[in-house]
Amino acid sequence: MSTDWNQRFLAHFDAMSENGATEGGGVERQAASEGDIANRKWFEALLQELGAKVSYDEIGNQYGVFEFDPELPFVGLGSHLDSQPLAGRYDGAYGVLAGAHAAARVVERIKQTGETPTRNIAVINWFNEEGSRFAPSMMGSSVFTEKLSLETALNTTDLSGTTVSEAIGRANWQPVQASPVISEYAEIHVEQGKELEHAGNQIGLVTATWGARKFQLTVKGEQGHTGSTLMSDRKDALFGASLVIASVRRFTDQFEPGQLQASVSQLTLEPNSPVTIAREVIFNVDLRSPESSVLRSAQDELQSIIESAESESKTEIQCDQTHHWDLNPYPRDGVELSREVVEKLGISYQEIFTVAGHDSTNMKDFVPTVMLFVPSKDGISHNEAEYTKPEDCLAGVEVFTEVAGRLIFS
Amino acid sequence: MSTDWNQRFLAHFDAMSENGATEGGGVERQAASEGDIANRKWFEALLQELGAKVSYDEIGNQYGVFEFDPELPFVGLGSHLDSQPLAGRYDGAYGVLAGAHAAARVVERIKQTGETPTRNIAVINWFNEEGSRFAPSMMGSSVFTEKLSLETALNTTDLSGTTVSEAIGRANWQPVQASPVISEYAEIHVEQGKELEHAGNQIGLVTATWGARKFQLTVKGEQGHTGSTLMSDRKDALFGASLVIASVRRFTDQFEPGQLQASVSQLTLEPNSPVTIAREVIFNVDLRSPESSVLRSAQDELQSIIESAESESKTEIQCDQTHHWDLNPYPRDGVELSREVVEKLGISYQEIFTVAGHDSTNMKDFVPTVMLFVPSKDGISHNEAEYTKPEDCLAGVEVFTEVAGRLIFS
Repeated sequence: MSTDWNQRFLAHFDAMSENGATEGGGVERQAASEGDIANRKWFEALLQELGAKVSYDEIGNQYGVFEFDPELPFVGLGSHLDSQPLAGRYDGAYGVLAGAHAAARVVERIKQTGETPTRNIAVINWFNEEGSRFAPSMMGSSVFTEKLSLETALNTTDLSGTTVSEAIGRANWQPVQASPVISEYAEIHVEQGKELEHAGNQIGLVTATWGARKFQLTVKGEQGHTGSTLMSDRKDALFGASLVIASVRRFTDQFEPGQLQASVSQLTLEPNSPVTIAREVIFNVDLRSPESSVLRSAQDELQSIIESAESESKTEIQCDQTHHWDLNPYPRDGVELSREVVEKLGISYQEIFTVAGHDSTNMKDFVPTVMLFVPSKDGISHNEAEYTKPEDCLAGVEVFTEVAGRLIFS
Repeated sequence: MSTDWNQRFLAHFDAMSENGATEGGGVERQAASEGDIANRKWFEALLQELGAKVSYDEIGNQYGVFEFDPELPFVGLGSHLDSQPLAGRYDGAYGVLAGAHAAARVVERIKQTGETPTRNIAVINWFNEEGSRFAPSMMGSSVFTEKLSLETALNTTDLSGTTVSEAIGRANWQPVQASPVISEYAEIHVEQGKELEHAGNQIGLVTATWGARKFQLTVKGEQGHTGSTLMSDRKDALFGASLVIASVRRFTDQFEPGQLQASVSQLTLEPNSPVTIAREVIFNVDLRSPESSVLRSAQDELQSIIESAESESKTEIQCDQTHHWDLNPYPRDGVELSREVVEKLGISYQEIFTVAGHDSTNMKDFVPTVMLFVPSKDGISHNEAEYTKPEDCLAGVEVFTEVAGRLIFS
């Protein structure tokens, strides 16, 4: 039976990877884009084939509902089908498909054994986990857990001015119904790092999320002619930004590898003309560490980098903190439940931190939650070359099915 | 009479500045944009009021034709009405209006004195001198002088994918006719520098354009997750770009003020996501100097800056030269003709270089050409705060009218 399910999983994963496929072997499925819409439609059909009823909520979360008893609450098995631009096939999508298979295998077990479940099951594809088209990331699960208001989320715009509300409206995901009542949640995801691969383990039991500080910086300079404005008269916002970007990166060299990740990856400038000095540059700074003390030190250093860049470039730089969290633990009960499962199944495992945020980061503050990782080859993520070996994918589904079973028959 | 013309000029200039006006007291009239279209329509009516016939050519150059004898060639009096984003009111627009007034005043003189002109007059508003929406700059005069093919120009796209052909088609500038045959050309423009103001002179006789080297740099890195990709594994294209941008600017400190201007002002990055390391950044590098030796040294330094940035950021940086000219003299005859005029009128003047390119940069390689400057307050250019005093504007029109007269009755 498991062999049959394994073959089906790999076939389903290959078929899914055709939706929004890129020439480089990856996928492009930003939230509510053509690729995302096609993939969700494909997934809706698969859920129905597996016996689920499909519905959506107002922020576009997609639910595949297996209801055994209308009185029971639901175990949520979820992740996200949306992707970064030119992304890999696994990130998010692997976990959503694993959730659908875990649910279907539990349903099959119920039919075969006659056991009585204590929970219904909702497979969940959260809307816009990636945040590349519409910020912030983890939008669907943030609205679900009331960390973000539905209204704010719907009014968010992409760079072309389209709102989330308009994008969801065009996608026309139907029927829109009340969300299922979730009492426990489990998610499986690719690691996006190298630790499992280096240790030779197939499963990571996620115990905590790295701390993070995220900022939006606005450099205010002055427009001028690139040819005729004397260097000493310039207030060049792009020069000011370049000083910060270079210094933030170089500062990470002061720490042991894996102690501080610092990134600038999104930037806009005005007027962005070949012959006019930039009057304004806006960009992000993203600092992450497992150690709060490292984050504090990095934040202090950022302030000093900004002051030095302002002085050298004669610009003014505003720094607004947009996100802030310290090392954020997952519930110990969930880790122990997973440990029992992997030990029973004899699958190699270790405890692990996640650097990235996941929808489970929201859900764990809301209900008892389990978070699992499978390995990522070379840690490559947000890249078409992202890869997880089929045997690792299948071990993950095996573990996830057993975890789901324990939650559903608890 | 001159007093009357002066009042009319200032009134026309104020009226023109309402077209595409910005809240900050400037104008926004990028090529074939709403502001540019409105202003050209306004200018068409003015030209007709002054007695000209208005026509357009296939690249959207606007001509106000005063034809005395169909056998005679034309003196062209021109500049450009298009602007940078959030630009000042003077750049280009001042010179086009000065051309219209100079032409009208010469026509009035013909009526009053019965003199026989040896040239017809074409007031010219060149299409897309600025190049901020559609690159390259000086597009209309480049097509006119066959330095750029009409087809290439028409197929150029802006950042939203609109072609020049589509933008001109929508503007529907009619009638499209063969361009007038130009035998001499004159242009007056704001200085965009501080030399006239510092020396207290009202007119600059432009003798040469600074040398320039312009480049497009493409930094190729690798996408990765900003949170989970180890710093040592990153190939961050934006980090590579920031190293080049900072170093190019710092390198100018090695030269005396006014010997080397270096700018980076236009930049795009992919995928421009808050959580994905940039795989590609494209930006311009613009080097300008009156000294070829300085440009050579700057270009050598750019190469070494690139190599160092590639090594530190683990990226590959491609550097394509897009423009290249050494100190580029204006015709001596034109300078001497202008000198006679300013000396006769008793207006303070000096010889001067231009750092910026102008449509006359194209025309001087094509026909005998005169290029004049009026002062710019504090040298401010490509900025809403750009300003030239009314008395300087009027002295410029006075000189330009006399220069036009000398060309037309030569």
